[in-house]
Amino acid sequence: PKKKDYTFGNRGKTLEDELNESNEYYLAHHLAVVHKKPIPIQIVQVDYPGRSRAVIREAYYRTPSTTDYNGVYKGRYIDFEAKETKNTTSFPLKNVHIHQVEHMKQVDEQQGITFLLVSFQQLDRYFLLPFPQLYDFWSRMESGGRKSITLEEFEKNAVEIRAGFTPRIPYLDAVDSYLVNKESEDGARGE
Amino acid sequence: PKKKDYTFGNRGKTLEDELNESNEYYLAHHLAVVHKKPIPIQIVQVDYPGRSRAVIREAYYRTPSTTDYNGVYKGRYIDFEAKETKNTTSFPLKNVHIHQVEHMKQVDEQQGITFLLVSFQQLDRYFLLPFPQLYDFWSRMESGGRKSITLEEFEKNAVEIRAGFTPRIPYLDAVDSYLVNKESEDGARGE
Ligand SMILES: [Mg+2]
Ligand SMILES: [Mg+2]
Repeated sequence: PKKKDYTFGNRGKTLEDELNESNEYYLAHHLAVVHKKPIPIQIVQVDYPGRSRAVIREAYYRTPSTTDYNGVYKGRYIDFEAKETKNTTSFPLKNVHIHQVEHMKQVDEQQGITFLLVSFQQLDRYFLLPFPQLYDFWSRMESGGRKSITLEEFEKNAVEIRAGFTPRIPYLDAVDSYLVNKESEDGARGE
Repeated sequence: PKKKDYTFGNRGKTLEDELNESNEYYLAHHLAVVHKKPIPIQIVQVDYPGRSRAVIREAYYRTPSTTDYNGVYKGRYIDFEAKETKNTTSFPLKNVHIHQVEHMKQVDEQQGITFLLVSFQQLDRYFLLPFPQLYDFWSRMESGGRKSITLEEFEKNAVEIRAGFTPRIPYLDAVDSYLVNKESEDGARGE
């Protein structure tokens, strides 16, 4: 286990809060424009009371068909799904929906930067798992293998995000490391 | 006025329907991954009837803080706002919200591809107006000038989208033309 380089943990804040704050920081500093997508809702009935604004009176949550966050970083498309787990030794893949994996596969094919951002809440550790690696673990599950990704596998295949203060979750640093590695690998393959 | 090169117009379909179909076509043909964002809703009260799924009983529409559509095209970030008008001679800028313009400005600064897609319903004509040009017209309004963009100004400053069948609104062709022009201009300026 690595030494933590920060004093306060994420107690009391959800991963969504932390990411929204980080995205606000990136936006204010002109580093990236990334927003959380609204939750998709199926609206069934709306009242229009005189003089007041419309009130939705019956609606249902719909299953999201894409990921939580997307946006632009140095002209490139960024798209990710954020998940937190209370587990301390592995991340259960049942937290990821098949249509989210399919969406990320489409984005990857279109040369977007796409990844899973996982928070191990109890450990105060965060990882950026690039889609190609996620897809390997997903395929392992689909061919009958284990239904989770172990912490050791994250340490080996993901980029760890060093949680800090401003921004709380500096995931663009992890994106930079990932891109540098990816480009040197692509270069080594003569692409 | 240009000759129309298609037989059926857009009667009965909303611009949103047409764009969703076009995006499905692009997705199925692995040309781009672009989706409409869900409408942002502020949820106030949710019922959880036993055994049934949650029912939202009180919620309100929120003002969107970004644009309608975003996604990835050849690795690049695409972001646009779609608007239709019944006007036949100009597009009123009151149809665009200031926070949408601000969002597009941020995207443009981050080197994303961002534009306004305008449908002149009565004319069956569609234009892609790149953000830098939109911003010029917006600034003209803010400094006391006219509050709309004339059809002639679209013809001169936007890329016309030739509506067809599959996809109905081939806006990526217009994006390609725009990028080719932009890159040759950037090249001429030595960028
Ligand atoms: Mg999530
Ligand atoms: Mg719109």
